[in-house]
Amino acid sequence: MSKDKKSVYKPKAISGYPEWLPEERFVEQQWFDHIRKVFESYGFCSIETPSVEELDVLRAKGEVDKEIYVLERLHKEDDDDSEARLALHFDQTVPLARYVAQHFNDLVFPFKRYQMQRVWRGERPQAGRFREFYQCDIDVINVDALPLHFDAEMPAIIWETLSALPGMAGEKIQLRISNRKILLGLLDALGISDEQKVDVTRTIDKIEKIGEDAVKKLLQETGLSNSNIDEILKLATNKNLSSVEAKGEMMAEGLSELQYVMDYLKDLPEGAAVADLSIVRGLDYYTGTVYETVFVEDPGYGSICSGGRYDDLAGSYINKALPGVGISIGFSRLFDRLRQQGKFDTSRKSPADILMTLPKEEDAEEARKIARILRQRGFNVEMFHRAQKIQKQFTYAEKKGIPYVWLPDLGEVKSLADREQVKADPQHWTPTKDSQNAKVA
Amino acid sequence: MSKDKKSVYKPKAISGYPEWLPEERFVEQQWFDHIRKVFESYGFCSIETPSVEELDVLRAKGEVDKEIYVLERLHKEDDDDSEARLALHFDQTVPLARYVAQHFNDLVFPFKRYQMQRVWRGERPQAGRFREFYQCDIDVINVDALPLHFDAEMPAIIWETLSALPGMAGEKIQLRISNRKILLGLLDALGISDEQKVDVTRTIDKIEKIGEDAVKKLLQETGLSNSNIDEILKLATNKNLSSVEAKGEMMAEGLSELQYVMDYLKDLPEGAAVADLSIVRGLDYYTGTVYETVFVEDPGYGSICSGGRYDDLAGSYINKALPGVGISIGFSRLFDRLRQQGKFDTSRKSPADILMTLPKEEDAEEARKIARILRQRGFNVEMFHRAQKIQKQFTYAEKKGIPYVWLPDLGEVKSLADREQVKADPQHWTPTKDSQNAKVA
Repeated sequence: MSKDKKSVYKPKAISGYPEWLPEERFVEQQWFDHIRKVFESYGFCSIETPSVEELDVLRAKGEVDKEIYVLERLHKEDDDDSEARLALHFDQTVPLARYVAQHFNDLVFPFKRYQMQRVWRGERPQAGRFREFYQCDIDVINVDALPLHFDAEMPAIIWETLSALPGMAGEKIQLRISNRKILLGLLDALGISDEQKVDVTRTIDKIEKIGEDAVKKLLQETGLSNSNIDEILKLATNKNLSSVEAKGEMMAEGLSELQYVMDYLKDLPEGAAVADLSIVRGLDYYTGTVYETVFVEDPGYGSICSGGRYDDLAGSYINKALPGVGISIGFSRLFDRLRQQGKFDTSRKSPADILMTLPKEEDAEEARKIARILRQRGFNVEMFHRAQKIQKQFTYAEKKGIPYVWLPDLGEVKSLADREQVKADPQHWTPTKDSQNAKVA
Repeated sequence: MSKDKKSVYKPKAISGYPEWLPEERFVEQQWFDHIRKVFESYGFCSIETPSVEELDVLRAKGEVDKEIYVLERLHKEDDDDSEARLALHFDQTVPLARYVAQHFNDLVFPFKRYQMQRVWRGERPQAGRFREFYQCDIDVINVDALPLHFDAEMPAIIWETLSALPGMAGEKIQLRISNRKILLGLLDALGISDEQKVDVTRTIDKIEKIGEDAVKKLLQETGLSNSNIDEILKLATNKNLSSVEAKGEMMAEGLSELQYVMDYLKDLPEGAAVADLSIVRGLDYYTGTVYETVFVEDPGYGSICSGGRYDDLAGSYINKALPGVGISIGFSRLFDRLRQQGKFDTSRKSPADILMTLPKEEDAEEARKIARILRQRGFNVEMFHRAQKIQKQFTYAEKKGIPYVWLPDLGEVKSLADREQVKADPQHWTPTKDSQNAKVA
């Protein structure tokens, strides 16, 4: 079956579309499994929405238009215009809003859902920006009013999720939490106009990135009085929540809500979640609690997991008040960071725990019998595909990162990690504890 | 937070893009988990490829052009043409070929991979046709030559997968297997021209659908002699493999390969996998073993899982002979069939095993402590979100299909299925066996 040389089209990666090798995908699956396990352990159900929405649904928010991919059928006929234009979703929040409105009568509220899907951003190809990536979101939606319990539970779930991801052991992360009513309440109390509020919140949002002095200069350019600026900066940089004095009802409400959330989180490790009044996020979306998550030793990398509370998720689709709170892990970006840093165990090119060798063709029947028993006990067993020198079969197992090889003719199993070969019965065999890669069935 | 009535945009489903309710998605997850478990238990690794490929990669096969969705950035600038056009993949075979060629030096062969992703067909909207759907594929690729072992293992894996899917218990399915060398070898031996071979195989493929007599008529129209037609039809309808006499080397090879595969499958239940010489599939792709899978009581529904052996997967990308064998489950179509037939247990709108009630606010601390212990033991526990009449909390659990409610103030747990309420210790409690929905941790 050898072939003559001929001209071939050498395939290459498409910029912005990540693709992993099997051993990297193995770790990515562990990530998804872990995230799903934690989300479900708090009672969040899974949903998936189509990859597309009608374009008009997506561009309710005009400013994201630039990043939308629309679909065209390659061989479109002239009479095809009857159908609405379809576009790939750029996040999971707009689809959630549409989903909740569309299936309102079939859902039980508070509706707690998680969603782990690909999203697309039609960016120009450019280094470091993904155009297709996974997000992992949890949101809770209720009708009319949503208890603060959920604002508090959210960071506890995220801490449990992120801190135990494979490869994250050495990373110090911190959830930074605020409540937008605090800063907005102060601005209200200081008599600052609505337009100026937009500028102020956007500027305060930059403290982490550009520093307090630069922020002060920017605030001065907006025409605010120095005393107001001082008061605003004093609040935003205050690290001691209990020392903040409320000015007005809205600010008091924000402080009390934030205090409730922080009290709920008191059992988390020191520094895992902190109140940080400089966190404000974009103005027009969040209305209360807001979250960001940073690498403590690399805060400039930006937030790896963000979210907050919104008052009106699906107002354009349904005549109901549907407040919600949600948080989103930027999965692929985080995964790729740790991947590039070499934080993953990438020894497993195969999910097989055991390679069932085939010393001679006559051993095939016995080999299959043993494999069947081991599979029923929960082990993954690859059958070697033809009789060959046993050493070649060992080499194959090693190359694929399969930790054990079984010798059906001898009734023995060998651990490739510690080179120990022992008698074994498929009904009772268990992996040795020393082998790093061993999976306990 | 009530709202004034206002005009809203009522969202609706997009034709061809399936979307499930949480309780349906719960079953869909069970399907994916089961399929993944079986595939991995045979040593297949997971890969995912981007949703898009370069259009030129996809349309190496001209005839599928019609079904391709291309992407356009909504706000495309004039200087964007430097980049190749991107299109959503319509299957997982073309992406696999590109993946294997691109990462050739990083893969270990035989490369055994599974892939469970969405694919897209840019069809006109029309009832019953999905335009976005999941496929679950397994393929084995090797360099130069691929042992027949894999052709034989493939149907065993598929049988184990399909027969144990939730909801499939009452369905009688059958794998029908042939080898294209048998029919093509006969046509060769009969001196039939290459063009006529195409017609004959396409026509034979219709026996199940239109019947033997209609096929005979069609074959007569191709100008074949009656004796040749009789010989061809005798072969295609022969149900007894051992009675077939080989004409020529190619046919003998096909018969011997098919016999090997059938021998390997002898431990499957009676009728699970049969040799069926009328199975030929499309001409230009498969070169040996071919598979189809049908509902025995509804063969007209078509094949739910098909595949076969191909000699040259990635010839347009790489100067290597890369033979492979693969099979693909048409996941979403099959899932939707059983869903519409009401074959699923759709009682679980939540993955929670236990609802931790909150009788009074003062119970919150204790409730969280118990929940933490239960989660560590592997149970999914939803915390009720505020103190409320206990009966309302029970109703909530019932609506969501959560099988147990825990009463932290009493240290008791109640099964909603059998209405039994017992003292329970979170360290040792286990679900009663009677409760259908109980998950054993």
